[in-house]
Amino acid sequence: MLSGAALAVSAAALLCLPSCEQGSSAPSAGASPFARPFPMPHGYWKKTDEFYCFASGGQQGGIYVYGMPSMKLLSEIPIFNVDPRWGWTTANPEVREMMTNPRTGEVLISGDTHHPVLSRKDAKYDGKWLFINDKRNARIARMNLATFRTEEILWMENVPGGMHGFSSGPNTELLIGNIELESYPAKEIRDYLGAEVDIDLIKGPYVSCVFGVKVAPDGTMKTAWQVWGPWQYDLARAGWGESDGWFINTAYNTERSVNTVGMFKRPEDYVFYWNIASIEKAVADGKFITTEEAPDVPVIKWSDIELYAAPCPLNPHGLDIDPTGRYALSSGKATTLVRHYDFRKVMKAIEEQNFIGEEFGVPIIDKEAISGDIDTGLGPTHIEYDNEGYCYIGFFVDSDVKKVALGDPWDKKHGHEPWSVVDTIPAHYSVGHLMVPGGDSAEPYGKYLVIMNKLTKDTFLHHGPLICENHELYDIETVPAPLIDQMSLPPESHYAQGIPVSLVTQHAKSVYDLPSTLPTPGVAYDYDNKKATVTMTCVRSFFTPDMFTVPQGWDVDVQIQNVEMSLDMTHGWALTGYDVMESIDPGEHKTLQFKATHEGVFWYYCLWFCSELHMEMRGRMIVIPEAEWTPELEWSALK
Amino acid sequence: MLSGAALAVSAAALLCLPSCEQGSSAPSAGASPFARPFPMPHGYWKKTDEFYCFASGGQQGGIYVYGMPSMKLLSEIPIFNVDPRWGWTTANPEVREMMTNPRTGEVLISGDTHHPVLSRKDAKYDGKWLFINDKRNARIARMNLATFRTEEILWMENVPGGMHGFSSGPNTELLIGNIELESYPAKEIRDYLGAEVDIDLIKGPYVSCVFGVKVAPDGTMKTAWQVWGPWQYDLARAGWGESDGWFINTAYNTERSVNTVGMFKRPEDYVFYWNIASIEKAVADGKFITTEEAPDVPVIKWSDIELYAAPCPLNPHGLDIDPTGRYALSSGKATTLVRHYDFRKVMKAIEEQNFIGEEFGVPIIDKEAISGDIDTGLGPTHIEYDNEGYCYIGFFVDSDVKKVALGDPWDKKHGHEPWSVVDTIPAHYSVGHLMVPGGDSAEPYGKYLVIMNKLTKDTFLHHGPLICENHELYDIETVPAPLIDQMSLPPESHYAQGIPVSLVTQHAKSVYDLPSTLPTPGVAYDYDNKKATVTMTCVRSFFTPDMFTVPQGWDVDVQIQNVEMSLDMTHGWALTGYDVMESIDPGEHKTLQFKATHEGVFWYYCLWFCSELHMEMRGRMIVIPEAEWTPELEWSALK
Ligand SMILES: [Cu+2]
Ligand SMILES: [Cu+2]
Repeated sequence: MLSGAALAVSAAALLCLPSCEQGSSAPSAGASPFARPFPMPHGYWKKTDEFYCFASGGQQGGIYVYGMPSMKLLSEIPIFNVDPRWGWTTANPEVREMMTNPRTGEVLISGDTHHPVLSRKDAKYDGKWLFINDKRNARIARMNLATFRTEEILWMENVPGGMHGFSSGPNTELLIGNIELESYPAKEIRDYLGAEVDIDLIKGPYVSCVFGVKVAPDGTMKTAWQVWGPWQYDLARAGWGESDGWFINTAYNTERSVNTVGMFKRPEDYVFYWNIASIEKAVADGKFITTEEAPDVPVIKWSDIELYAAPCPLNPHGLDIDPTGRYALSSGKATTLVRHYDFRKVMKAIEEQNFIGEEFGVPIIDKEAISGDIDTGLGPTHIEYDNEGYCYIGFFVDSDVKKVALGDPWDKKHGHEPWSVVDTIPAHYSVGHLMVPGGDSAEPYGKYLVIMNKLTKDTFLHHGPLICENHELYDIETVPAPLIDQMSLPPESHYAQGIPVSLVTQHAKSVYDLPSTLPTPGVAYDYDNKKATVTMTCVRSFFTPDMFTVPQGWDVDVQIQNVEMSLDMTHGWALTGYDVMESIDPGEHKTLQFKATHEGVFWYYCLWFCSELHMEMRGRMIVIPEAEWTPELEWSALK
Repeated sequence: MLSGAALAVSAAALLCLPSCEQGSSAPSAGASPFARPFPMPHGYWKKTDEFYCFASGGQQGGIYVYGMPSMKLLSEIPIFNVDPRWGWTTANPEVREMMTNPRTGEVLISGDTHHPVLSRKDAKYDGKWLFINDKRNARIARMNLATFRTEEILWMENVPGGMHGFSSGPNTELLIGNIELESYPAKEIRDYLGAEVDIDLIKGPYVSCVFGVKVAPDGTMKTAWQVWGPWQYDLARAGWGESDGWFINTAYNTERSVNTVGMFKRPEDYVFYWNIASIEKAVADGKFITTEEAPDVPVIKWSDIELYAAPCPLNPHGLDIDPTGRYALSSGKATTLVRHYDFRKVMKAIEEQNFIGEEFGVPIIDKEAISGDIDTGLGPTHIEYDNEGYCYIGFFVDSDVKKVALGDPWDKKHGHEPWSVVDTIPAHYSVGHLMVPGGDSAEPYGKYLVIMNKLTKDTFLHHGPLICENHELYDIETVPAPLIDQMSLPPESHYAQGIPVSLVTQHAKSVYDLPSTLPTPGVAYDYDNKKATVTMTCVRSFFTPDMFTVPQGWDVDVQIQNVEMSLDMTHGWALTGYDVMESIDPGEHKTLQFKATHEGVFWYYCLWFCSELHMEMRGRMIVIPEAEWTPELEWSALK
């Protein structure tokens, strides 16, 4: 218990929540809306958090979840990785199946997550699902925000990997993905694209695709189409509002080179404008082929749809659409330029055929008619938006974020010169992505900016030659924006999404529903298939059964039901001498499968200090050589 | 850049470091030595951190490293798990070898780390190495604090797993480990222990052991002996000062039961006192056997050494020695009792043979002569010490920590009634381990207490049915101790060690040493062994070679040298279509091995946003069916 004095301090501290003391003037010392109180009242971080942040894990293979402004890590959602901490291992056949490559049958236990995408309705977050892509192996996963767990992994057809850009339509009815790392596809596709794309296995160039994934009302994903063409693509955004019905993406390697230097030869590259209806029409009209690998996936030729290119600064990376859906900003990452495109003008230019040429039959829109440049810093990367008419542009080389006033009609709101810099926010160091809650939707929540830095250098204490990352939290309701906190994260988080707490908690589940009939503990022996099925329950502080026997070499299938119904009453099941270790949440049922490869007595024990009897919460698997096995050794005969 | 105004605030904030404003009186609102400043100056957390905390990862399989009082995660050190974020995967043959079970040949990719142990000299931390045990598979790992990386994993001989207690002698010349989960060992051991221990494969009881591991001056570990006997053991502490030459451990299941309820039958269990010289004498006298599995490891009988038992409260767990080495406190985790043993009195009782009986030939010391009880709360777990004569006892059921004044000679220092409670510190919730920097050594640094709670419940925002853990930081220079911060961690951290920053940074390495001769990039084809060896360098923003060819089905051995010499200039190597993903730190050389199982073009790319040319930092592995392969397709012919 806190003492009375401490409680009084706590109450005072709680009255001054971060949200209630902010003004638009520069902060003065002493007035500290984001100062951490001391002593800290229990529950402070929970009470003061306003947003969830879902950040990609990069090499972690899943998602980091933290609170804002607490910057406290709440959870990690494993997806493409195994993580016994968070109950995600290949001993669970549901997980193993999701992680099995349908092309090769191999179980992959790592991935490289990049762009988290919250589900949305009318281009605003609805708090139901979270999607993310794996760059390395071209996969998409769907997580349920009721449970914070992965429910589905879709492996992209016809490509070995390299999926980078990933975006959702305004109602999450369609997801758009880009294959960045161009490939030498199956012969059907090479033949269909024809000699014009001129590809060669060894020398290159190669070809690549964008794809659409349909999301059913229950969240289930299915690849709807792929459009293949001569280029590779980096980042993607599906439009809404004024850009509804279109998606756009960047291509930094319009040179179609296979080496680093060659990819920088052209002074400008392209942003592409894709008409979704024209793709769906190609499908409806049967203008596609399918492959032996994926007989259900229409493979469409780039020249059979409505597609336009617009010049953009050298090797563009970020491409982000403003809340109205009218503007798209694209950054030339090896330049000082960010180009702003006005979708209204793009539509007019297309209508008027205001083209300066074509490449591979794709019309190139006159950039003078549709875009303008912001020249304000070196190494621009990504762009996010707030609700006040500003965008935030990250600069890798300058190590800062520029706050830029948007053009019409936002200038009526902010009163600044359109496309002028109104604040320069320091970063530590080398900005990659950045995030404003809701900053890629029609309804940014603003208030905070998270800068996701790529280098950390001296920010935290020394910790060896492999350095953590640094997410920095800034207050963007104030100019100059003050730094609130710095958060270290393992390497290397890419994009993130921030969403108000209430949008997530409205769907929240704290325990799983118990089945109407609880399983009867016991062991079934299947001599034909050499498989023992163990039906087990766990509760503080017992496994039932707490002993089972199995002939050596058999498959073991443990079906565990956690019968607890209290929040935080997770139990674990770790098996000594074997590589099996899992957690089972309150109310949850889990299956664990493994082979009883070696003989002896192996204790299974609970991984969680769930009660004072925790150490004693254990049981034995006794593996007996097959030659010594007799039915008298079955569990039911011994118990 | 921070604005001038912000810098002024920052400087003011930095002048009030946490260490300079603490008193022993209760804090008042307004005086906030641990308040977080706003705006936060860059570098604040680094400048104000005084200690490193190395916390066990539990199911994470390695170590968490965070700063104190920042409570910012700095790093994770992977050990028994794979973690591409921190450069630790089985594609690296050095890692794979460490993770291969010598008994079964299986590669295990998970573990359950429990008790981190910092190396020490004269029972004080020296900042060189960190050791930790894996409970599930009975392994010990050694990490180098110069690099924060694992250098060695030792698999315990003759046991399948279940190692819990783990401790270091005062000069880290000897590590002591306990096997908690009793086993049915190889026939040689069963025969040697004899009928007296009465074991049965199916019904139990079983037997268990403690073992000693010698640590060479270069850190290399080797099992020196195992002492087998009728009991199983939980926590262990090697003595120093007054208890030098002995180690002690707890046994909660002196009933030798194989089920939970049976383990609680006796009202009291034992703390054991082991004389190390007597064990070494047994080895010297040849009083041991060895097994076929481990011909180098002496297996000693409990009855051939000097071993004593002392009664302790029902099902003891924690067992921790005070800074002088004189007192050991043991907690009866299912009771309200913590028993304090005076080692001086124990030695006297042994000398005077003040025994109340024996069990399995082991004398039982009269508890009245050596110990007393503290009866102060329900569910005592672990104990830590400060430098002022107090200990801190965690209570699982009461969810608090009691600060207790120690007995003679500490009472001259603190002035309280010996063994009286002087503060009750709240915890959220259910205390497992706890940690005071240096709190298990002859030189506690005191100042802070970290409470490692087992349940979190409502402490942080909702995040689904699987809840994070909560490490709480308290200021123990003040009574009542105020809460400074709460830190969420993935499940489930056990013990931790805190050490002053300077003791670690004195040995620190920020980049690896480059080899005197850099390797020449190229590809060697070994047709006899069907193996391609790729010698590669990486630097911003190129892999050299950026293309190689290989016949399908061959082994690929990629030898990568990162030639960067700047802190934080790690590069990654991720291979599309395959499960290969690693990082290579500045100056580091790494080997990655895999099989080229499927044909096609597979890009490898850098996982780290290392420069503005990062996206373009990539190369191709071209896998060609063996039937189509000709030497003209070798890299050197194509380049
Ligand atoms: Cu449990
Ligand atoms: Cu790189």
